[in-house]
Amino acid sequence: MSTLSGINDIEEGLAFQPKFDAAGLVTCVATDATTSEVLMVAHMNEEAIRKTIASGEAWYYSRSRKSLWRKGETSGHVQRVVEMRMDCDQDAIWIRVEQSGAACHTGRRSCFYRRIDAGEGGTRLSFVDADKVFDPKAVYRK
Amino acid sequence: MSTLSGINDIEEGLAFQPKFDAAGLVTCVATDATTSEVLMVAHMNEEAIRKTIASGEAWYYSRSRKSLWRKGETSGHVQRVVEMRMDCDQDAIWIRVEQSGAACHTGRRSCFYRRIDAGEGGTRLSFVDADKVFDPKAVYRK
Repeated sequence: MSTLSGINDIEEGLAFQPKFDAAGLVTCVATDATTSEVLMVAHMNEEAIRKTIASGEAWYYSRSRKSLWRKGETSGHVQRVVEMRMDCDQDAIWIRVEQSGAACHTGRRSCFYRRIDAGEGGTRLSFVDADKVFDPKAVYRK
Repeated sequence: MSTLSGINDIEEGLAFQPKFDAAGLVTCVATDATTSEVLMVAHMNEEAIRKTIASGEAWYYSRSRKSLWRKGETSGHVQRVVEMRMDCDQDAIWIRVEQSGAACHTGRRSCFYRRIDAGEGGTRLSFVDADKVFDPKAVYRK
């Protein structure tokens, strides 16, 4: 499929043919359908994609836990999918979601709660939009 | 660093310590600073991050070409970085950019020009926001 016609088909065609990496995953970016902010970046395997499409709620594959994962299954902070898009080479998916509660396991609305700043003493992070929406200790208590 | 204090430091600290994968990369999502649409998903290695911070323009690492890549070096479609953010576990970066021309090598403004739809005959793609801003044959002509 690395012929020119193969590439054209992947980029210009309408066949759904995700290009999974060696671990069987594609990258998925979830943005808030209302505010458009990026909520999180995660991964989906074939089953996560299938379940997301079938249920209308986001499912991911956790590389650290090595398991399929319905977003919000523990916290209740589910993501209802408003739109799902594929990128040019079909190895990344963008979902626009209605986020219940917060996307980040740290309790913030988005996982991207720190800005990267160039400073005299080197690169540093600073908190921005970092208010906690929920207390992770209470939500993820065993 | 997989101790609880290590995780807390990565998630709640202000030290910039990107968690590179086995290939030395982190995922980077670029969104349009004006429209907030997702333009592309790509990767950065340590050098790409450093050059992006130093120059204020997006640099990436191309996995297919195995080389550092200044966005727009061939097409002129550079990305001026307005803000750069790190995610909770420091393995993904979100940049908000002012995009010259178009982000996608196919000529579209965004790489995400196809919607994923569930159909009776299975999952299909359909074009959306897929107008070409430039002619890739003209821009990338050798």
